[in-house]
Amino acid sequence: MDFGHSPRAQEYIERVSAFMRDHITPAEEAYHAQLTGGADWRQWRQPAIMEDLKAKARAAGLWNLFLPDPHHGAGLKVVEYAALAELMGHSLMAAEVFNCNAPDTGNMEVLHMYGTAAQQDRWLTQLLEGKIRSAFCMTEPAVASSDATNMQATAVPEGDDIVINGRKWFSSGIGHPNCQVLIFMGLTDPDADRHARHSMILVPLNTPGVKIQRMLPAFGTYDEPFGHGEVVFDNVRVPKENVIAGLGRGFEIAQGRLGPGRIHHCMRTIGAAERALSLMCARGDSRVAFGKPLTQLGGNVDIIADARMAIEQARLLTLKAAWMMDTVGVKAAMSEISQIKVVAPNMAQKVLDAAIQMHGALGATLDTPLTALAGYVRTVRIVDGPDEVHRRVVARFELGRQKAARDLA
Amino acid sequence: MDFGHSPRAQEYIERVSAFMRDHITPAEEAYHAQLTGGADWRQWRQPAIMEDLKAKARAAGLWNLFLPDPHHGAGLKVVEYAALAELMGHSLMAAEVFNCNAPDTGNMEVLHMYGTAAQQDRWLTQLLEGKIRSAFCMTEPAVASSDATNMQATAVPEGDDIVINGRKWFSSGIGHPNCQVLIFMGLTDPDADRHARHSMILVPLNTPGVKIQRMLPAFGTYDEPFGHGEVVFDNVRVPKENVIAGLGRGFEIAQGRLGPGRIHHCMRTIGAAERALSLMCARGDSRVAFGKPLTQLGGNVDIIADARMAIEQARLLTLKAAWMMDTVGVKAAMSEISQIKVVAPNMAQKVLDAAIQMHGALGATLDTPLTALAGYVRTVRIVDGPDEVHRRVVARFELGRQKAARDLA
Amino acid sequence: MDFGHSPRAQEYIERVSAFMRDHITPAEEAYHAQLTGGADWRQWRQPAIMEDLKAKARAAGLWNLFLPDPHHGAGLKVVEYAALAELMGHSLMAAEVFNCNAPDTGNMEVLHMYGTAAQQDRWLTQLLEGKIRSAFCMTEPAVASSDATNMQATAVPEGDDIVINGRKWFSSGIGHPNCQVLIFMGLTDPDADRHARHSMILVPLNTPGVKIQRMLPAFGTYDEPFGHGEVVFDNVRVPKENVIAGLGRGFEIAQGRLGPGRIHHCMRTIGAAERALSLMCARGDSRVAFGKPLTQLGGNVDIIADARMAIEQARLLTLKAAWMMDTVGVKAAMSEISQIKVVAPNMAQKVLDAAIQMHGALGATLDTPLTALAGYVRTVRIVDGPDEVHRRVVARFELGRQKAARDLA
Amino acid sequence: MDFGHSPRAQEYIERVSAFMRDHITPAEEAYHAQLTGGADWRQWRQPAIMEDLKAKARAAGLWNLFLPDPHHGAGLKVVEYAALAELMGHSLMAAEVFNCNAPDTGNMEVLHMYGTAAQQDRWLTQLLEGKIRSAFCMTEPAVASSDATNMQATAVPEGDDIVINGRKWFSSGIGHPNCQVLIFMGLTDPDADRHARHSMILVPLNTPGVKIQRMLPAFGTYDEPFGHGEVVFDNVRVPKENVIAGLGRGFEIAQGRLGPGRIHHCMRTIGAAERALSLMCARGDSRVAFGKPLTQLGGNVDIIADARMAIEQARLLTLKAAWMMDTVGVKAAMSEISQIKVVAPNMAQKVLDAAIQMHGALGATLDTPLTALAGYVRTVRIVDGPDEVHRRVVARFELGRQKAARDLA
Repeated sequence: MDFGHSPRAQEYIERVSAFMRDHITPAEEAYHAQLTGGADWRQWRQPAIMEDLKAKARAAGLWNLFLPDPHHGAGLKVVEYAALAELMGHSLMAAEVFNCNAPDTGNMEVLHMYGTAAQQDRWLTQLLEGKIRSAFCMTEPAVASSDATNMQATAVPEGDDIVINGRKWFSSGIGHPNCQVLIFMGLTDPDADRHARHSMILVPLNTPGVKIQRMLPAFGTYDEPFGHGEVVFDNVRVPKENVIAGLGRGFEIAQGRLGPGRIHHCMRTIGAAERALSLMCARGDSRVAFGKPLTQLGGNVDIIADARMAIEQARLLTLKAAWMMDTVGVKAAMSEISQIKVVAPNMAQKVLDAAIQMHGALGATLDTPLTALAGYVRTVRIVDGPDEVHRRVVARFELGRQKAARDLA
Repeated sequence: MDFGHSPRAQEYIERVSAFMRDHITPAEEAYHAQLTGGADWRQWRQPAIMEDLKAKARAAGLWNLFLPDPHHGAGLKVVEYAALAELMGHSLMAAEVFNCNAPDTGNMEVLHMYGTAAQQDRWLTQLLEGKIRSAFCMTEPAVASSDATNMQATAVPEGDDIVINGRKWFSSGIGHPNCQVLIFMGLTDPDADRHARHSMILVPLNTPGVKIQRMLPAFGTYDEPFGHGEVVFDNVRVPKENVIAGLGRGFEIAQGRLGPGRIHHCMRTIGAAERALSLMCARGDSRVAFGKPLTQLGGNVDIIADARMAIEQARLLTLKAAWMMDTVGVKAAMSEISQIKVVAPNMAQKVLDAAIQMHGALGATLDTPLTALAGYVRTVRIVDGPDEVHRRVVARFELGRQKAARDLA
Repeated sequence: MDFGHSPRAQEYIERVSAFMRDHITPAEEAYHAQLTGGADWRQWRQPAIMEDLKAKARAAGLWNLFLPDPHHGAGLKVVEYAALAELMGHSLMAAEVFNCNAPDTGNMEVLHMYGTAAQQDRWLTQLLEGKIRSAFCMTEPAVASSDATNMQATAVPEGDDIVINGRKWFSSGIGHPNCQVLIFMGLTDPDADRHARHSMILVPLNTPGVKIQRMLPAFGTYDEPFGHGEVVFDNVRVPKENVIAGLGRGFEIAQGRLGPGRIHHCMRTIGAAERALSLMCARGDSRVAFGKPLTQLGGNVDIIADARMAIEQARLLTLKAAWMMDTVGVKAAMSEISQIKVVAPNMAQKVLDAAIQMHGALGATLDTPLTALAGYVRTVRIVDGPDEVHRRVVARFELGRQKAARDLA
Repeated sequence: MDFGHSPRAQEYIERVSAFMRDHITPAEEAYHAQLTGGADWRQWRQPAIMEDLKAKARAAGLWNLFLPDPHHGAGLKVVEYAALAELMGHSLMAAEVFNCNAPDTGNMEVLHMYGTAAQQDRWLTQLLEGKIRSAFCMTEPAVASSDATNMQATAVPEGDDIVINGRKWFSSGIGHPNCQVLIFMGLTDPDADRHARHSMILVPLNTPGVKIQRMLPAFGTYDEPFGHGEVVFDNVRVPKENVIAGLGRGFEIAQGRLGPGRIHHCMRTIGAAERALSLMCARGDSRVAFGKPLTQLGGNVDIIADARMAIEQARLLTLKAAWMMDTVGVKAAMSEISQIKVVAPNMAQKVLDAAIQMHGALGATLDTPLTALAGYVRTVRIVDGPDEVHRRVVARFELGRQKAARDLA
């Protein structure tokens, strides 16, 4: 197990870290001020400051860092990129600056790995340049996504077309003014093998029949200007060329897509926890009650120590999962990926809650990034499989491993 | 210890319960739809449906239930009203329907106990009728409210006037379109005894120099149409007749005000937890994953059992504190009041979090009342003294009691 | 809900409390010194000091307090006796002093309610006088007792006799030098209705075929001189007159037996927690590190406050369950009894662990009662149904209640 | 960060693992049967089977693995030996088999690093051969060891001798029949600098004035045949040649001694947790209740998953601390060492408790190794600095680090 950083990775860490400090943290207030706010997503605009920052990051060579392919991205291993994802987790606006934001990262990976040349020409290039945004439509309101075989929306071939019907929600990114394409996952053949029933289809956002009904708030935020949409597909018709990899291969693609995505999410929650701990310490040292700084009162030192210990452990476990993805692959790392998917956001939720409490009433407002980060990490406990499903996976692997050991003995 | 309900109290429970079921729960969606939403409080309107419901509740004799005085209110003991406050806690819009919402309840109690006839004529009558709303300005951004002697805003006599200066925030209720008066607490004599330095002053909202700067979001909500304001007082001048009870008596009044208020908050958080448990069970029985309802999967039964056990315990402790207030008074119940102030919202936070998780992505949205209730109960861990301060109080009493027992032995 | 104490109950509280303080606490060291110690139960002796204390308690009228029957016992309601059981919980040796120790209490209740005149003459009288001790043989090593229908040992009628075979363990009290009789529960008719298969039989300890194989340690203690025995029944033959209440009525009796027994256990764990909190405060005030008493260091005040809040809540819930047993009966209180069976020992385990930690190395030894009390409360999480089974019960009731409410609405 | 294992380390892991499986686990029952048991330490004997196993291990080259010196030990780095310490943690009897048991390991390290040739000749050689055992006398009953400057026992030069007085307890290993020497730490110069007041002295056990008063039980076990002694030193006189490293250097030596010792303890607690998880899975798969194996009931899968996730995290953090000791030294790893000293035993305590619960009544007995392992890991939360002190250290480092970062920015 080597989680250390190659000189190249170490150099990226320093550059991203400096960019965060010099450009992003100072821009947070202005960015939020430029958001038009509220539930009415039709009025959302991309803040100008974001495009400025993107240009700066791209010029600085800090662009598409997530992509393991050295031609289009930074060519970093998962374990190397993990450290950068953590840094980006300090600020909710950071990932987009480096063109490393979900769901575009996953969509770009899918197009990069499975896309035809035509699909790549039409969509991947612009996504890699950050010129357009994309959405991912998988979750459905009517069925439990924790068990993905439940999915009911359909993508059925009809002549040269694929006809799409159904209702999706939590289609992240679909509210973005620059969003032009979505990847739809739906049922093609209910009689096929359980993991060969679904397909992934590229759907331009302006295709007739794609009806965005509303943006969903998640823990009090609309994640403007990305949003989480509820979308109805009403006899949406796209050419067969828009199928990714082939009909019935949806699951296979989804599995590959989710591994790195979960690592990225988890590392970002760890970054969020680090920011919370940092703010908690600053507040605890400066705020005075009963004649003493808060850090000298009651159990606050224990809270700070517990936060540090929890963060360290979650980071190491996430790095281990990343390292396994690099060395033995997603499949062999399945238990570890499920482990971090539970551990990291639960840890971050606790640390953020403690940091909020240390800030008193201020912690409840938007004057610190704490409640927004708390909303993000809380969401991570649900998306890409809720805690409960991942614990099941971990236990199944554990029981299997233990049984195998007993059988051997 | 008798927490049972007198026939009269039991009858109120049934009536409030029926009113909640028949009128309030069905109105929740319409109420929220009538809110104009967003951060711009100047556009906030009182939803018409609320005034309808208030009229219905008043006609039904379910009005001012919180007030122990039988002439102006229902004449219920604290332990009796507690059960009603719990019921109201099921819905964030319920308390106002019965004219039992904070901060008006506390303000009415203060005016009722300490107000002059003139003050009561001018303000109390209209508050009791639900015609106007009021705010309470105590917390300040610059100092830790957990230690109230920190308060820096000033209320200084000058001739026949009191001159008020300073900055307050989390002035709850001040954004309400019907808000016409606020109670300001400020420093009058820094050299007086620690608990005789501050005064409470009635300030009409339209007094020159009262500048509402913004409404503060609390865990993602502005609590429209009440709001939590940040307010600057810039040489605000009111006549001495507006002083409540006398200069320097602010602390004394605040102490009396906080006891019942904390009970009410805690009972509402218990009601919120009951609603969460109820929604969690309904969801768990109806949602299917891996071929089974969620209630038959993994640890969900344990989560439900733990919620039930935690709610029962928190309720009994809150009723005990209420019963002590009725029988031995606020002062003798100080440890118990601090105990519930920690126990109840922490319990409710956990139950709400579990209920949200059981709902998956739906739980993150506003399609259920869960995130809004979660925001409320989280706030209670901070307002009226954060957990940390109340734990200090409990420990101080405990150590004192134990030492006394050792000294006796 | 009235958990208050009648003047009569209050008077008992004061008398038991004074007896504990004046006679039992001072005798603890001598009592333990008189134990011969160790695993070899054949050498166990009843400490002389225990018989002295029993005589004193009986003379003081503090005898058989658990028995609701006013002729043979104190005639206290469950909720009244609960307060006394809590007091006894402060010391592991206390219950026997008042002839209120398990499993004799349960056995006496069974004989009192279901025993024939002959059974009562032969066994109950001497048990009520504290002259003999008894054991209860239900748990079996080979099957999960959490599901009592698993029970495999047999009690089969053969002519005028009952023939008993099988292996039992955790037969508590069977190592006591004064133990003369045991109640055996076994399978009589595997084809009968699930709750009518088992019978309870009185078996004199010296009946041929009763083979005590060893005493089992429980969390490091043998609970000398009572012990928890592993016992083989090898064609043990007793006359049919020894059947209690009738063949096939074992479950019915067990259910009635367990309700009060669980309340008693829970109240004792609460007493154990109170003792732990008391020792923790004394230690925290007197022990100095880094120049300050421990109570002024770090989170120790939070630990003390948390302990107080947890104890209060568990006690109120247990009193509620006791009050329900008195007013609506065991059956209607089933969920509440299961609730406290989870809540009380888990709470006490945490408080004891914290108290041990506050004592440092001393806390690990037998120089304080903490580890022995910790062993007792840990055991309670397993006996009479483990946590897991009781959580199932609570959840089943909750889901049923919620469904009924939904069906009504 | 490279926690991977060199081929040499990997080979050791396999050999120790095989030795554990083939020789130690099968010997556990016989070992415990050969213990004479009980509190009377004068009757303790070294089980013959232990000497057999030691001979086997030594012959197999699995001897003194802890010692980084390649001449006397295996020459393993801390991070390499950590994996072996974890394996030994599966069985409480394992460490001695490999001559790797506390406190001999620490004492050997001290003699190896600081001992004179004469001291090494007389004591180290025999210790390295496992022929004698040693004790370490630091903790005192009268003062809080959490703050080591409290230590009151004295070691004062007088002519050519050192005169030793005072009372020590938890002098581990002093009850062993083969124990011949102890290292005493005491106050030499109360006026010296805070960290230069104490000295370490070698004291043969048979020196006049060394009075072992009793063996202390720790969570129900005497840790026979090692024991934890309470010892009075009454004008004990040894020649100055017995001072280790020089008067006043006690603290310096203790600091160096504790770093690796804490790693070893933590890795053993992780091994104990692994054994618990393994037993929990075996039990859960085989035990049936309500018609299903326990692993298919309620939250047991969550408990198993949580255990796996907690163990993985604690192990990675411990390996990180070990790796830091190897690469940057004890001083720079101080926060990390304190972190694992809190994390590892707390984690193991939870996992053991869960494993015990999964075993029901059996879990409470000595028929599984669970309660004994639970006692060990609980002890680790107290020895070598209690949790509270280590949290203080972690918080102090964290606050310092955060302040430095703020000052830079």
